[in-house]
Amino acid sequence: MKDTSVKPVAVLGLGSMGSALARAFAAAGHPTTVWNRTAAKTGPLVAAGAHAADSVAEAVAAGPLVVTCLTGFDETRAALEPAGSALVGKDLVTLNSGAPIGARETATWAVGHGARFLAGSVKDVPDAIGGPETHLCYSGDREVFDEHVRTLRVLGGDTVHLGDEPDLAAFYEMAVGGLMLPALLGFFQGAAAIQSRGYTAAGIVPHAEKGLDMIKAGLPGFADQIDRRDYREPSSTIDLFRTLEQAEHDLGQESGVDVTWQKPIWDRLRQASDQGYGDQEISAVTEILRGPPNQGTQ
Amino acid sequence: MKDTSVKPVAVLGLGSMGSALARAFAAAGHPTTVWNRTAAKTGPLVAAGAHAADSVAEAVAAGPLVVTCLTGFDETRAALEPAGSALVGKDLVTLNSGAPIGARETATWAVGHGARFLAGSVKDVPDAIGGPETHLCYSGDREVFDEHVRTLRVLGGDTVHLGDEPDLAAFYEMAVGGLMLPALLGFFQGAAAIQSRGYTAAGIVPHAEKGLDMIKAGLPGFADQIDRRDYREPSSTIDLFRTLEQAEHDLGQESGVDVTWQKPIWDRLRQASDQGYGDQEISAVTEILRGPPNQGTQ
Repeated sequence: MKDTSVKPVAVLGLGSMGSALARAFAAAGHPTTVWNRTAAKTGPLVAAGAHAADSVAEAVAAGPLVVTCLTGFDETRAALEPAGSALVGKDLVTLNSGAPIGARETATWAVGHGARFLAGSVKDVPDAIGGPETHLCYSGDREVFDEHVRTLRVLGGDTVHLGDEPDLAAFYEMAVGGLMLPALLGFFQGAAAIQSRGYTAAGIVPHAEKGLDMIKAGLPGFADQIDRRDYREPSSTIDLFRTLEQAEHDLGQESGVDVTWQKPIWDRLRQASDQGYGDQEISAVTEILRGPPNQGTQ
Repeated sequence: MKDTSVKPVAVLGLGSMGSALARAFAAAGHPTTVWNRTAAKTGPLVAAGAHAADSVAEAVAAGPLVVTCLTGFDETRAALEPAGSALVGKDLVTLNSGAPIGARETATWAVGHGARFLAGSVKDVPDAIGGPETHLCYSGDREVFDEHVRTLRVLGGDTVHLGDEPDLAAFYEMAVGGLMLPALLGFFQGAAAIQSRGYTAAGIVPHAEKGLDMIKAGLPGFADQIDRRDYREPSSTIDLFRTLEQAEHDLGQESGVDVTWQKPIWDRLRQASDQGYGDQEISAVTEILRGPPNQGTQ
């Protein structure tokens, strides 16, 4: 009886994340075939026991499961196109960032090529691949997920299927991605400001950690308000946050640090206040973001 | 023998936070005198056992410790000015948001009026005041902190003195404040986007929580890089983050949600890349923020 936990896997795209995926499959004993646009990247993986395919078609033919880790959905379809009929009967699993619409287009494209489709995203850095708590989300064909879940779990112990809609993982990833970079820039701004006074950035880390904990503690309540579209029981009002704008401006002046990247944020709060949300919860800014972009502030 | 834990306290400024402070002091048995610019706010506190002063001078005269919770440092000095010589020998503790320079100005002003000075900030919501884990930071005159720490700890169990520089608490608070609003708007953007697809904002909460945990886990490393000004061992490069700009743009297009408030963030990443930091850690954006604001992007 064949052990389904060691079925052959093809990995296409060997950037730092793709290489980590292929390495994890090979380390777990899966016959692993790798392909990359520039062949030089296959070397370390061949040394780790993988087989380097000469073409996408050869890689796709190597087994039932094709895992791609290319730049985006457009690049994924373009790379797979030469495989042509080799895709018939295969299960395609994408692990790249990209907009939800790209996941839907790729789902349609895959089915049109006779393949089944699952769109995934990795919620961690390449070094974490293979860890028991590493989190990967998938959405799309549930049967594909169920048939390959033992194999996919090689990449991370916290592997879940979000739903049958192929764009759901991308939506969820973008929802998190939209938070990460602004939060990081906020931390970098604070680090630069405190350094301007001769203190270390390390000193603000415990404070920033508490700040992140406060945000985390607030999210379920904010989400509930946003789902009900009712912001009338505020713990921190929009107008309370707005009182901090001058202080941030002053901080920029005295430290020489650029705080102007936050100007559109203050503009959105002002709009919310202008529309009558000033004494409501900060989460009411969601109602401003729902609308079309305010061209005047850009 | 007088129990120093129940010394008289004056609280000036009875917004939601100031009222919570006064309520906590009164509940802990401190003779508590309150004052507010509009006297109506004193009613609930008088019912809770506080004494309402008719003037700032009367409030300041009520005891050794004067705690203010007014809008900012300018407003604090303006409100206290009429107290005049009543301030001599008093210990002034401010608990408001504001730029570091305001804390320094107020320290000089207080000493000029014969008072000692401590600038604090509350790292939580009014409802949390009095809790064993509620975090308050103070900076400035260490003797004032040591003499009143038992009283100050009534407001929150996690009460610390950061250093003798009066602006340190404000710097630390701004460092955290600069992160909070951008992170929240990122979450609201994701919530609006996922709702546009018919899903609930509640559904993204676990994902956003994991995202915040990832940021938190990264902060000590980022701070170390920023302190060494060496970003050459990246786990996530600036150019890797930049590949997400198009996806975010597409998300805005397909969901109708305003993602344009993040444009200055993408601009800063592009500048960092233009200056040769593209293949370095995302924390290298700090070097861009250090400089003067780029007027061209505003």
